[in-house]
Amino acid sequence: MKLLEERIQKDGKIIGEDIVKVDMFLNHQIDVALLDEMGKEFKRLFSDKEITKILTIEVSGISIACAAAREFGVPVVFAKKTEAANLSHEVYTSEVFSFTKKKTYTVRVAKEYLHASDKVLIIDDFLASGKAILGLADIVKQAGATVEGVGIVIEKGFQQGKKLLREQGFDVKSLAIIDAIEAGKIYYGENV
Amino acid sequence: MKLLEERIQKDGKIIGEDIVKVDMFLNHQIDVALLDEMGKEFKRLFSDKEITKILTIEVSGISIACAAAREFGVPVVFAKKTEAANLSHEVYTSEVFSFTKKKTYTVRVAKEYLHASDKVLIIDDFLASGKAILGLADIVKQAGATVEGVGIVIEKGFQQGKKLLREQGFDVKSLAIIDAIEAGKIYYGENV
Repeated sequence: MKLLEERIQKDGKIIGEDIVKVDMFLNHQIDVALLDEMGKEFKRLFSDKEITKILTIEVSGISIACAAAREFGVPVVFAKKTEAANLSHEVYTSEVFSFTKKKTYTVRVAKEYLHASDKVLIIDDFLASGKAILGLADIVKQAGATVEGVGIVIEKGFQQGKKLLREQGFDVKSLAIIDAIEAGKIYYGENV
Repeated sequence: MKLLEERIQKDGKIIGEDIVKVDMFLNHQIDVALLDEMGKEFKRLFSDKEITKILTIEVSGISIACAAAREFGVPVVFAKKTEAANLSHEVYTSEVFSFTKKKTYTVRVAKEYLHASDKVLIIDDFLASGKAILGLADIVKQAGATVEGVGIVIEKGFQQGKKLLREQGFDVKSLAIIDAIEAGKIYYGENV
């Protein structure tokens, strides 16, 4: 998505060779007009799929999921992150290891918001190791529902996430794929 | 806002005499069509104000703030909650005591996303004690910006939040005002 690549180049903050922060328009300040364009692009990328629900994870996935959900005309469900073990039997849970934070957290979704008949599009802001997406996909599986696709805003193409997800049969598409960061410049790839 | 009152009555979960959970359409699952209507209503309620930025707080305020921001044509900034004391000099911070969680947390906004020229509409999902809103207003003040209004989805009219905020001169308007909860029934009030 050219508009997003240009925006990352303009306003993203590159840290070293593997971190790009997009606090300027997505993860702290949010450009709602750009969100709308991203929502439309997700609809275009997954236009062949029948979707009944968008699943994402707090915090940064929520605004993007809402923009996509508007285009698909379906509700959003956002998984909650918690370190508390005090969970009821009425929730699906999965464990996710965060490389960034070097710890494992639990993601949870109340059972009443995911049904076996749901056809789910999982949306998230970043794809790196793929662990968070696998946690969400595990919850979808527990509900007996199906993952129809995985839509990512920014994929770190130099990490293993997409490969891992595709090996498990998921249809993964990203709005911007960062193949490499070298000397402060970002090199983009394509969805293939 | 009749549509919202009806939705709370239909899908809200009443717990005792002072808690209403709206996980079905706002705080876990999100009804995006309802969000859009709420965004339009905030625009109508504050149509006399010139707004340059919507400020909210993670997590539940984000989707609502985005819906409002679309109507006003301005960016959202969401304050982050953190318990970490390891903050840089480049952020505004304020302390907020949560009655629900019985602890104090720090809210923070990067200085680069709030400017002295900003005319801010603060948006949040619930208004009870008003402490979270005061924390956000404190951050706006630190930036030298002005709070043009405070828009709330659900106000607990039987708590002191609105009174406290109005005493400090804030223009507070809510989409639904719960005056009382008795025997499982919600009684609504009006913006006055």
